[in-house]
Amino acid sequence: MLIQSLVYPGFTTLDLIGALQPLAQIPGTKTEIVARVPGANPTDSGAAIMADVTFENAASAPDVILVPGGGTPTIDTLEDEATIEFLAKQGESAKWIVAVCTGSLLLGKAGLLKGYKAASHWSVIDTLEAFGATPVHERVVIDRNRCTGGGVTAGVDIGLTIAGELAGEDIAKLIELVLEYNPAPPFGTGHPSIADPTTLEIARTRAQSTMQPDRIRQIASA
Amino acid sequence: MLIQSLVYPGFTTLDLIGALQPLAQIPGTKTEIVARVPGANPTDSGAAIMADVTFENAASAPDVILVPGGGTPTIDTLEDEATIEFLAKQGESAKWIVAVCTGSLLLGKAGLLKGYKAASHWSVIDTLEAFGATPVHERVVIDRNRCTGGGVTAGVDIGLTIAGELAGEDIAKLIELVLEYNPAPPFGTGHPSIADPTTLEIARTRAQSTMQPDRIRQIASA
Repeated sequence: MLIQSLVYPGFTTLDLIGALQPLAQIPGTKTEIVARVPGANPTDSGAAIMADVTFENAASAPDVILVPGGGTPTIDTLEDEATIEFLAKQGESAKWIVAVCTGSLLLGKAGLLKGYKAASHWSVIDTLEAFGATPVHERVVIDRNRCTGGGVTAGVDIGLTIAGELAGEDIAKLIELVLEYNPAPPFGTGHPSIADPTTLEIARTRAQSTMQPDRIRQIASA
Repeated sequence: MLIQSLVYPGFTTLDLIGALQPLAQIPGTKTEIVARVPGANPTDSGAAIMADVTFENAASAPDVILVPGGGTPTIDTLEDEATIEFLAKQGESAKWIVAVCTGSLLLGKAGLLKGYKAASHWSVIDTLEAFGATPVHERVVIDRNRCTGGGVTAGVDIGLTIAGELAGEDIAKLIELVLEYNPAPPFGTGHPSIADPTTLEIARTRAQSTMQPDRIRQIASA
């Protein structure tokens, strides 16, 4: 079982690790971190993550290709041809194509969501239409072998769900217990549907400049 | 604002990143990853994390010293004198001393939990008594400037809680929304109190060999 993860400069660390941790707990799993540039890839939490391989020597036909999202650096990466070509190529042979948060936009640009239901971070989910996908406002969305979901922390739910698909529900239940996934959000503001109006207004304004939905739509149609 | 994180070979990646991600979202924050050994530190998800500095040149008096846990590698690290001495020293000047999962055992060995209420992964929480701490079976436990909590995914709750302490509740509410922390555990087995008996029995048996509670108690009294 091979879990292959894409990394790129400035992505959101928790997008990757939230999903990778439960998948890596599956007995007998190997992981491979792939980047365009070898060595340490900086991320938005300050923790740089090492690439094991580059696009040239990455394994084909992984059981999972896992794509994290992020803020502006992810939108910038939509215009990185080498990365988009790599995803399109891996998409032909990977058993599961999985993205967390705005990672789904990268899948979209690679043509992997055309005609598929998909999700993304709440601030940009509607831009998925520009890539030919049907936005679904759920935390984990599976359509055939594509799995996408909500923002950042949704990676944990996505990773556990795909662990269940790959290794069976009994193993996934065990991993959920080992990871003590019994969450208790301290503020209760983790989604537009439950956040207070002031918090939501600030977050929406900020997302306009970091996520740049108009730019995403332009890139989709370029 | 400086968030300083300890890394060591084989720790649980999500312990660190779950807590670091919300803390790193606080405006104006700097992060510093510290290790005994320079360079890439392997972790249990396969994603190696780069150390920025070693114990010799780590900043003193950080706003947070953050300590991730893990399985057997964390128990092994309880016997690594250089790491324990570093934690004891940072504990004298750090504003907040924060541990996720079995990271609290490392704080305990460094003498930082004597007379404090504390938590840990469900499988070893009772061993905290051997370090002079009072185990509290809650997901996030604050006692004066110590913050500890449950296993792995509790890092997100811990990180958001400390973000609220450091930057105020309005900022922490915003971070919770940006991270879309509206969790939906797929299997509902994330704690011994809710897991089915079969899953719990397998997890308990496995924890006996990976976490080695008897060895932890011996190390505590050594």
